[in-house]
Amino acid sequence: MSKQESNSPKLNSKEDDSSTGFIGKKLSRREMLRLTGVGGLGLLLGGGGIGSIIAARSAAAPSRAAQASSALADSIPFFGEHQAGILTPAQNFLCFAAFDLTTTKLSDVKKLFQAWTSTAASLTSGQLIGNVNDNPNLPPTDTGEADGLSPSRCTLTFGVGPSFFDGRLGLGSQRPASFQDLPVFTGDNLEPQWCGGDLCVQACADDMQVAFHAIRNLARIARGTAVLRWTQEGFQRSSGADPKGATPRNLLGFKDGTGNPDVTDRKEMDTVVWNNNGDGPSWMNGGTYMAVRRVMLRIEVWDRSNLSDQEATFGRHRQTGAPIGSKDEFDDLDLKATDASGKLIIPENSHSALAHGDGTVKMLRRAYSYSSGMNLKTGQLDAGLLFISFQRDLVKQFVSIQQRLSKNDKLNEYMTHTGSAVFACFPGAREGGYIGQSLLG
Amino acid sequence: MSKQESNSPKLNSKEDDSSTGFIGKKLSRREMLRLTGVGGLGLLLGGGGIGSIIAARSAAAPSRAAQASSALADSIPFFGEHQAGILTPAQNFLCFAAFDLTTTKLSDVKKLFQAWTSTAASLTSGQLIGNVNDNPNLPPTDTGEADGLSPSRCTLTFGVGPSFFDGRLGLGSQRPASFQDLPVFTGDNLEPQWCGGDLCVQACADDMQVAFHAIRNLARIARGTAVLRWTQEGFQRSSGADPKGATPRNLLGFKDGTGNPDVTDRKEMDTVVWNNNGDGPSWMNGGTYMAVRRVMLRIEVWDRSNLSDQEATFGRHRQTGAPIGSKDEFDDLDLKATDASGKLIIPENSHSALAHGDGTVKMLRRAYSYSSGMNLKTGQLDAGLLFISFQRDLVKQFVSIQQRLSKNDKLNEYMTHTGSAVFACFPGAREGGYIGQSLLG
Repeated sequence: MSKQESNSPKLNSKEDDSSTGFIGKKLSRREMLRLTGVGGLGLLLGGGGIGSIIAARSAAAPSRAAQASSALADSIPFFGEHQAGILTPAQNFLCFAAFDLTTTKLSDVKKLFQAWTSTAASLTSGQLIGNVNDNPNLPPTDTGEADGLSPSRCTLTFGVGPSFFDGRLGLGSQRPASFQDLPVFTGDNLEPQWCGGDLCVQACADDMQVAFHAIRNLARIARGTAVLRWTQEGFQRSSGADPKGATPRNLLGFKDGTGNPDVTDRKEMDTVVWNNNGDGPSWMNGGTYMAVRRVMLRIEVWDRSNLSDQEATFGRHRQTGAPIGSKDEFDDLDLKATDASGKLIIPENSHSALAHGDGTVKMLRRAYSYSSGMNLKTGQLDAGLLFISFQRDLVKQFVSIQQRLSKNDKLNEYMTHTGSAVFACFPGAREGGYIGQSLLG
Repeated sequence: MSKQESNSPKLNSKEDDSSTGFIGKKLSRREMLRLTGVGGLGLLLGGGGIGSIIAARSAAAPSRAAQASSALADSIPFFGEHQAGILTPAQNFLCFAAFDLTTTKLSDVKKLFQAWTSTAASLTSGQLIGNVNDNPNLPPTDTGEADGLSPSRCTLTFGVGPSFFDGRLGLGSQRPASFQDLPVFTGDNLEPQWCGGDLCVQACADDMQVAFHAIRNLARIARGTAVLRWTQEGFQRSSGADPKGATPRNLLGFKDGTGNPDVTDRKEMDTVVWNNNGDGPSWMNGGTYMAVRRVMLRIEVWDRSNLSDQEATFGRHRQTGAPIGSKDEFDDLDLKATDASGKLIIPENSHSALAHGDGTVKMLRRAYSYSSGMNLKTGQLDAGLLFISFQRDLVKQFVSIQQRLSKNDKLNEYMTHTGSAVFACFPGAREGGYIGQSLLG
């Protein structure tokens, strides 16, 4: 369990079923509204935190979900020390959106983040946005396509790009020293339509329609202050198809994420992910930096390569995910082991060997596969990886690893980086506060 | 339950749990292989049909799924009187692919459909394609990204377009009389990149990675005979987010599919969907025609319209899905009812009223929402509906309804048809036969 989650009140985990026996029976959306109007859902849950927010909002905005029990069981708290969607175990789907500001007024931006915060609290707890009894003579306050759906572990993670500090808003002096656009890497083939952004929202959920609904409504709320710049949907194998939750496979057929640091190790997360005192400006304390790369995979070329070449490319066995020469997926990468002839067993230009390096520099990867129809230029599938990583420092972590990979990785033959962006992800918001408050005041 | 399913042997429905108690415990993929090597999974299941196919293939190609019980529980039989994926209740995800032939040899096409059939039987039952012990010096027989995943109710539905009969293959005389490209409808704004195709495969599954894997491997197998022309991913709300299975909502927030005919009504399906003796060439007996329309929704414009306008546009209440003036989603559409002033309660140019007409012409809709990033021309979301319908006759059903809609539907203001294709979907294949056999011999 991520720190975000363990620091926040549990709503309906298996450990505290006793407090929810009463709402275990099926409730209609309307029954739930009536119930919360009478007693307040917070009372039912016997706790504060999100429960009381739901209670406070519910008279106007009921849960979307027809079944209260499942609605609460799959909700991830929005408020906390850190933003959710970073250490949170990856949900099945992603809608990623980058925005450009259309204002130069800092007060507009502050208002946007305040509105985004209260809306995000609704969206992630499965509530409709705004009033349940819409005025027929006005546009509905909620676009409706997630009406009736559970929260689906939706998380919304907000950040700002280097261009946010370009002077328009008068925030130039607040830019962290090492926070800037990524350098050009060997082999980059970036297209402007997949790059940059003043703001970003990463929406993840176990349901694509819930994630889409979140981005669509946040974009709608932003009108007059920011517009969408680019969006990308992503997926991984769903929990339904893999109930045991094995490491997901990427579209090249290999397990992806085996070597990721342990999100339950607080010390490791403080070292790898979270900004602390002294790292840079204090507004980023408890925040982290996100690197996003849209990587188109040359699937048709890969599919014509031999299994032994594929395994040498990753430095791992395809079926088990184990390092070449090992049996178990989680066996240590022994990068010095040699065969009888003295040749390295795991090639030094393999993806695993280069990404691992000497093991001292890590980042937290949280990537999704994507499939976006055909690439009209090549006539091949436009499918691949929306690589996302979180790290305390972009230059020391992502850039240093990516420079190594971009020069020598045997995998480069099978992929093209078409998009690139970085974002400073704010610390989490406390109830009553808003995302971005440490910077925007 | 669809006819496809009810005509085929049940593998592990709740009704016959008794036969699967033994495999209720968790089995690894390797254990399952061993098991099927010894006794044959068919014996465990105590039946023939798909069970015996699995047994026959398993020594070489084990189930992908780590848990045999869930693997079998969510498998939909591939063989049967009709193709699956037509009456099958819609799965959560879609990968749709249109292909163009690169051969003029009928024998190549026949070989392709034979290979597609045996591969589809593997894919839909959750098996790896080909050998489990891949030769390291050859490309793997299965691309691997669905290894470990359950069948996820995957269905694969095959069809051929009007251009299949254009003379290249010598099949011109076999073209059904009313099977031709759709006429141009008022307001069409079609782009070649989303239109047509000599062949199609509709892959549906409860897991996007499983659906993608199917299309990718079928495309791979087609090399030398056919190439991808266009593909489109789609989604609807997942069963996890809506365990009660309410009618799904489209991206305009309205329930979509309320008025669909009942797939469990065999007589209705014989009238609406399946070709019978005398309808046209006998090779289509048991088959059906598919219409595909890629409809981009003007989401940003819709989101600025009033709730009352939105409801008048659909002719239904948004929250309940009931016809305007009614309470329940499934209440009859009373298109003659008037208010006190004599005005029709359900506007005659509403989508429901026009789609319903006099109620005598029906089709079976099986649409998915799509979200494909930004439209670079408009700077707005490229999101909407991949409309798919099945009908016994395209001209009498789809064309007649769409002509009415395209001229007067109030919904036209909020949408643009960007893609269009039609396909003749063969009857189902019997074990030992192949999809397309009735035409290709």
